[in-house]
Amino acid sequence: MSAIEQLTVELGKLPGIGRKTATRLTFHLLKQPRGAVESLARAIQAIVDRIAPCSTCGNFSEADPCSICSDSRRDRSMLCVVEEASDIEAIERSDEYRGLYHVLGGHLSPLDGIGPEDLRIDDLRRRVENGSGLREVIVATNPSMEGEVTATYLRGVLAPLGLRVTRIARGLPVGGDLEYADRSTIAQALVARREMTE
Amino acid sequence: MSAIEQLTVELGKLPGIGRKTATRLTFHLLKQPRGAVESLARAIQAIVDRIAPCSTCGNFSEADPCSICSDSRRDRSMLCVVEEASDIEAIERSDEYRGLYHVLGGHLSPLDGIGPEDLRIDDLRRRVENGSGLREVIVATNPSMEGEVTATYLRGVLAPLGLRVTRIARGLPVGGDLEYADRSTIAQALVARREMTE
Repeated sequence: MSAIEQLTVELGKLPGIGRKTATRLTFHLLKQPRGAVESLARAIQAIVDRIAPCSTCGNFSEADPCSICSDSRRDRSMLCVVEEASDIEAIERSDEYRGLYHVLGGHLSPLDGIGPEDLRIDDLRRRVENGSGLREVIVATNPSMEGEVTATYLRGVLAPLGLRVTRIARGLPVGGDLEYADRSTIAQALVARREMTE
Repeated sequence: MSAIEQLTVELGKLPGIGRKTATRLTFHLLKQPRGAVESLARAIQAIVDRIAPCSTCGNFSEADPCSICSDSRRDRSMLCVVEEASDIEAIERSDEYRGLYHVLGGHLSPLDGIGPEDLRIDDLRRRVENGSGLREVIVATNPSMEGEVTATYLRGVLAPLGLRVTRIARGLPVGGDLEYADRSTIAQALVARREMTE
């Protein structure tokens, strides 16, 4: 396969990029100065060379623990549970939350064969059991069906441990995706979070 | 800047990819296996390491002359002039043309300060003057205003050299872009090409 075909195939594997867009991007890159193309190649290589999940919270990070876990100014009495590391950035943009995070790595989905053992739920339980001063867990899984199922399951796991378990408010459109919500919607959803009850 | 921010910035420079899409692609790549991400980085680096313009026709190629210019089975009596190297792939897909190509590297655009000296028009004239057996030049610039202006200019340059100068038929939607046309439209446009007259 030629280098042009190879790049078109690789770009076509990205989500939302079909064959035509991949071809267009390839020819765009062919017309760029060498330095610009190399910057892109280096930036992609850098994420495998420099980024790894934080062993504490699961966030993508260049340091371990990550900059949030190691930040002494963060409020250690609160833990916000999210599905994906990308959700952390969305919540940080809201400027409404100053606690710690825990990344599950997805949501429960029995139909896809994804059970509690496939998510970082045991790690979460251990963190909560060992976390001195931890008073509240905010469950910020997506407001989708799977996110709600996951939230309910987490409440069952966490409630017996004797701390406040809250659910981010349904200010977000149902069926939506936290990662793409605007910052004020996320801020409002954090403020209006509610106690999780049976 | 962190590796994540750096990659988001680099991806955001690509045409049609805004900040949100760049962020989404970055987090997609963060979740991929190391090998898949390195394949993409390598494929991008390969186009600067392995691809250069063919010194004869201007097509992007790993060899010089390119595989089309050096292919003895191609019809050397015909030369098809295109704006961009990516247009060659579109025409090849039509399976209607077996001659050679010449890439101009753009179109005339006085408003943007792009004149004949900025395109590979002198190279084209030399090729036609020295090309023994060359009988026809098909002008396949885009069916846009700039493409038509460029075609008219080329006719003025080539007609005195005593060979047939044809224009790809306006089967393509006016204002469209050759690169994105479907193969049957391109095939029809090639079949219905017409003599260029004053």
